[in-house]
Amino acid sequence: MNQIWALLLEYDGTAFVGWQFQPNGLSVQQVLEEAASRLARGAAVPSIVAGRTDAGVHARGQVAQIVLAEDWRPDRVREALNFHLRPHPVVVLQAAMVPDGWNARFSARARNYRYVILNRRARPALESNRVWHVHTPLDAAAMAEAARFLLGRHDFTSFRASSCQAKGPVRTLDRLDVRRDGDRIVIEASGRSFLHHQVRNMVGTLRWFGEGKYEPEYMRFVLEAASRAAAGPTAPPWGLTLVRVDYDPDPFG
Amino acid sequence: MNQIWALLLEYDGTAFVGWQFQPNGLSVQQVLEEAASRLARGAAVPSIVAGRTDAGVHARGQVAQIVLAEDWRPDRVREALNFHLRPHPVVVLQAAMVPDGWNARFSARARNYRYVILNRRARPALESNRVWHVHTPLDAAAMAEAARFLLGRHDFTSFRASSCQAKGPVRTLDRLDVRRDGDRIVIEASGRSFLHHQVRNMVGTLRWFGEGKYEPEYMRFVLEAASRAAAGPTAPPWGLTLVRVDYDPDPFG
Repeated sequence: MNQIWALLLEYDGTAFVGWQFQPNGLSVQQVLEEAASRLARGAAVPSIVAGRTDAGVHARGQVAQIVLAEDWRPDRVREALNFHLRPHPVVVLQAAMVPDGWNARFSARARNYRYVILNRRARPALESNRVWHVHTPLDAAAMAEAARFLLGRHDFTSFRASSCQAKGPVRTLDRLDVRRDGDRIVIEASGRSFLHHQVRNMVGTLRWFGEGKYEPEYMRFVLEAASRAAAGPTAPPWGLTLVRVDYDPDPFG
Repeated sequence: MNQIWALLLEYDGTAFVGWQFQPNGLSVQQVLEEAASRLARGAAVPSIVAGRTDAGVHARGQVAQIVLAEDWRPDRVREALNFHLRPHPVVVLQAAMVPDGWNARFSARARNYRYVILNRRARPALESNRVWHVHTPLDAAAMAEAARFLLGRHDFTSFRASSCQAKGPVRTLDRLDVRRDGDRIVIEASGRSFLHHQVRNMVGTLRWFGEGKYEPEYMRFVLEAASRAAAGPTAPPWGLTLVRVDYDPDPFG
């Protein structure tokens, strides 16, 4: 009998071409599916994922699903996958059985991302590939104020990559918090789903406000322009981490 | 005129043989002194450091001192050193002038270390070289209780490396906090000074209590035995970070 498994994943996105298969390099998906294939006597094991992270983007709580034909105990699925995932920087934190009809992508209620800016003169010695280094001083309070204009249900065309394959540009942003923690600026974004590059484009635009380039109210104009040209540049991927995906009920409860 | 400079340093200790010069590999001291020499027209610039960290140990707030003969502005010292420190994972966060008689090592009032244990089944994908991975479940509350027996002024022979060059084994431990933060156990240790490997030996011993091998009160026996054989093994260096060194007044104030 076929059993659907939900997998909670952590990975370092630095050396990958992103979640999704690419002909030009190693993807997290390929590494996971090759490990899963070892649990299925070499048969192909396709996966579905909650968030297709870009090259360089990390995950502490990505969720993927696979189907295994044989009976397994949850801790054995985790341990066996982790054994075969070596030495890649991808690990399974938990494996849980989920009922038929459950879907890692479509059952997700919210995706929670964190973006970290290292805001100081010196480059990072301990967190390179984990933070965006911005050496000009940023006003986190102004960024937080500007961020509030993006909350709620909007047409996010201004923050949508041209490569975005979503059907429409309307999304509901439930959280966009900005806080300073020493020399780091931490941005937390939550919503049911995001457009391609939406978080990175919002962060790149928030930088404008942190630099005092515009008053926070100007963010309303950026949003209402519904034009990618009205918003700021895309922040680099290495500051971004998919922290958690919410389901109801939580399969890893 | 000669000016003493205090330098606040961050570094990733992974690829270094430690702070101190060694014939068999690259040290943080060598990298710093070679960079400083470029600011002194090639003359040798010796350094003194607050804490001689071991190979693999990291720093977010190490303090070193150097002497420069020419007049410099503080931000220029920082920027010039950072330019010459590339591409090594060592950066100067701040440079500050300090008065004659000030000494990075002997003027220090306290050294503050953090040790992080990743306590879960899966190896770290995002924090390898930054945490000690212990996959058996640890009871952080029991570790915290055992830690309390080490607070205060004691003969710390049980936690002293045989290689320790300090004159005596008596030290005052002002803080040894243990707390769980999700799947991480964070241990914070503060004191005026520490014996060689003292923090790592305390952490290796605390693990015993986290595993329930002994009741917390047994820590008193470990301490009073005044024998390295009575304590636990040395925890690995990569979980340890020198977080901050305190001076009064704070040169980086």
